[in-house]
Amino acid sequence: MKRLTGTNEEIAQLLYQEQLELSKQNVDVEETVRAIVEDVKNRGDQALRDYSAKFDKVELDSLEVGQDLIDRAFDEVDKDVLAALENAKANIESYHKQQLETGFEDQPSEGVIRGQLIRPIERVGVYVPGGTAAYPSSVLMNVIPAKIAGVKEIIMITPPQEHFVPAILVAAKLAGVDKIYQVGGAQGIAALAYGTETLPKVDKITGPGNIFVATAKKQVFGIVGIDMIAGPSEIGVIADKSANAKYVAADLLSQAEHDVLARAILVTDSEELADAVEVEIEKQLKELPREAIARPSVENNGRIIIAKDADSMFELMNLVAPEHLEIAMDNAYDYLDRIENAGSIFLGHFTSEPIGDYYAGANHVLPTTATSRFSSALGVHDFIKRIQYTQYSKAAVNQAEKDITTLAYAEGLQAHAKAIEVRNDNN
Amino acid sequence: MKRLTGTNEEIAQLLYQEQLELSKQNVDVEETVRAIVEDVKNRGDQALRDYSAKFDKVELDSLEVGQDLIDRAFDEVDKDVLAALENAKANIESYHKQQLETGFEDQPSEGVIRGQLIRPIERVGVYVPGGTAAYPSSVLMNVIPAKIAGVKEIIMITPPQEHFVPAILVAAKLAGVDKIYQVGGAQGIAALAYGTETLPKVDKITGPGNIFVATAKKQVFGIVGIDMIAGPSEIGVIADKSANAKYVAADLLSQAEHDVLARAILVTDSEELADAVEVEIEKQLKELPREAIARPSVENNGRIIIAKDADSMFELMNLVAPEHLEIAMDNAYDYLDRIENAGSIFLGHFTSEPIGDYYAGANHVLPTTATSRFSSALGVHDFIKRIQYTQYSKAAVNQAEKDITTLAYAEGLQAHAKAIEVRNDNN
Repeated sequence: MKRLTGTNEEIAQLLYQEQLELSKQNVDVEETVRAIVEDVKNRGDQALRDYSAKFDKVELDSLEVGQDLIDRAFDEVDKDVLAALENAKANIESYHKQQLETGFEDQPSEGVIRGQLIRPIERVGVYVPGGTAAYPSSVLMNVIPAKIAGVKEIIMITPPQEHFVPAILVAAKLAGVDKIYQVGGAQGIAALAYGTETLPKVDKITGPGNIFVATAKKQVFGIVGIDMIAGPSEIGVIADKSANAKYVAADLLSQAEHDVLARAILVTDSEELADAVEVEIEKQLKELPREAIARPSVENNGRIIIAKDADSMFELMNLVAPEHLEIAMDNAYDYLDRIENAGSIFLGHFTSEPIGDYYAGANHVLPTTATSRFSSALGVHDFIKRIQYTQYSKAAVNQAEKDITTLAYAEGLQAHAKAIEVRNDNN
Repeated sequence: MKRLTGTNEEIAQLLYQEQLELSKQNVDVEETVRAIVEDVKNRGDQALRDYSAKFDKVELDSLEVGQDLIDRAFDEVDKDVLAALENAKANIESYHKQQLETGFEDQPSEGVIRGQLIRPIERVGVYVPGGTAAYPSSVLMNVIPAKIAGVKEIIMITPPQEHFVPAILVAAKLAGVDKIYQVGGAQGIAALAYGTETLPKVDKITGPGNIFVATAKKQVFGIVGIDMIAGPSEIGVIADKSANAKYVAADLLSQAEHDVLARAILVTDSEELADAVEVEIEKQLKELPREAIARPSVENNGRIIIAKDADSMFELMNLVAPEHLEIAMDNAYDYLDRIENAGSIFLGHFTSEPIGDYYAGANHVLPTTATSRFSSALGVHDFIKRIQYTQYSKAAVNQAEKDITTLAYAEGLQAHAKAIEVRNDNN
């Protein structure tokens, strides 16, 4: 891993520029995607079938994944995987239920009622990539918060497969997906955004995908809501001399194996630990089935920064605003109040980041590329709307008349003033 | 106003297509804006000064609006306006304080801690348009929720003026803006997103603006967070025979006067009321100083739908998902639970929509173009981040090992499994 030196601001700035570079989509598919989206909007199901024939090389009998295929997935799924998914589901549910919001109402003065309703988004679409990028854990992470929010209908789409990964269909049903359609790519996103004869139009689309999917999501944003567009995965580890180099190395590599563009950053105030972690990384890399991905990731994008003390480590990491943040220190919990920017935090020597990817319950859909400065993990809040309401009695509006009309006239909006004055008996 | 007939689905679909048409930005300024953003990113303050000379025709001494100008604004501001702003501020504060969230923490099993921190976004930029579109009420609505969220620094930018509208600077200071810079347009948005020698880089930008501002916000999204990009304003009124035609007409016109593209929709189960509202609109239009705006708005975009009963009125309006929704019915409050989609609701015959624009306390920055199906009014939630955290003890991670590694192996991510196994003494 490359070692960086400088002030925290300089290092953070450099890391950010590098991160933007890693996130850059070098392929321009805007026009291709725009044509596909337009075609699906106009030709509906037939366009979906045509793209399936063209891109997926299959002639689809049915766009919907039928109950027979779902039953077969439950028959075929490995029993340990099923049990693990059920346990993960329980943890994800119990974590996310704590995010449920309730509305409020107050009566600040005589004749005035104000409040806020919480309503679930009505219909949500979840995109699940096909092939080797099909992660049942992502199905749980996208669907369960929507379900807890009270979304009435959850539609999953995924590219057609010769044989669906059983755990994907099983995770979908466990999590509460209502219908599954075998439609992938930009055409799938367009179908969710505009609806077709078979697929219902949704209100919001979440879930990861390749550049065609991500570009289509950006293009339909506004017609529907979307979740974030994720960049390559990142982990930042803050470790002092109490850390175990073997553990830290293993955790850094668990991010690195995702993608050659993934990034692992170690910030430590111990030169010794930094050296030991590098030795461990090399040792563990050699035993790793995905060495071909993890090695270029750590060699090109891995970074080590030696900080002068704990204060400096936390200052730097807040500037970096990593997606995943591990604090590999004794009493890590006590440092929680130092954290200003991060997607998800893993505390202490034993909370390896993959615990969060699969199991503990917090969401693994997280803000990348320093966007944790202003955004958050996917959660129940992403599947609700807050609707304001206000009620004024006649006496209350008459009493507020002077203030309201003064502001309306000051802004040159006389019809606004008039709408208040008309409620006064003198008018 | 044009009358529409058909099924609720047909009417809603037609209204939505029309609304998309009204929202369409017919000018393509993408490239112009991209060049300005790039220039500000590269040349900082000097670029800002050059654009001010070019677009605003002023040579700026100071980019910052100094304390002398702010003091002068407090001297000059109309005393009634100041009092009204102070009262509005108190109402906006007391409403939005109810949106404050707290974190949570649980210990679902031995050795496991999970939680969520709430952290304010550190630095926010608020754009305030210049000239006749300078609305002090919008300053309050954008700044107060950020302040309540705990944002550490709030930067306001606004185009340079010969003489700033005193109420704008006064509203900024009342609401808690820390610094004001006289920079407008796309160059101002770029300065907030990237920072210059004088302007600090912010984490999120909110506030309305013209097409240059809106396009610049879209372009810098991802580098910083942004609020919504608003379309033309809309009001939907549900009224039955208990409604007062004079009031309903005044409220429809209060939206119509905003913009020739603004839209007013009346849904009623009373033909009589519909007729009476049309007569009143014509009568009131003639007396309206902004008739030249309001008349084409109601004539081109105004719509009346006669529904067969209350159920049908609410069904249609939920499909329309209007920005502002008035329920002009006796016992309007009892119908709250019927509402699924709306930005802000105004209940009963006396709650004229301008009460919400200026005064009652709920936010007036609202989702337009049916985006209330998946998004909400600006609020405290837009200025915070939710940061997840998890802590597992050694015993807890060892106990969860089988489930986690089963899922990791099923997804082909062996380094993920390894990071868990390495914490087991047997490895």
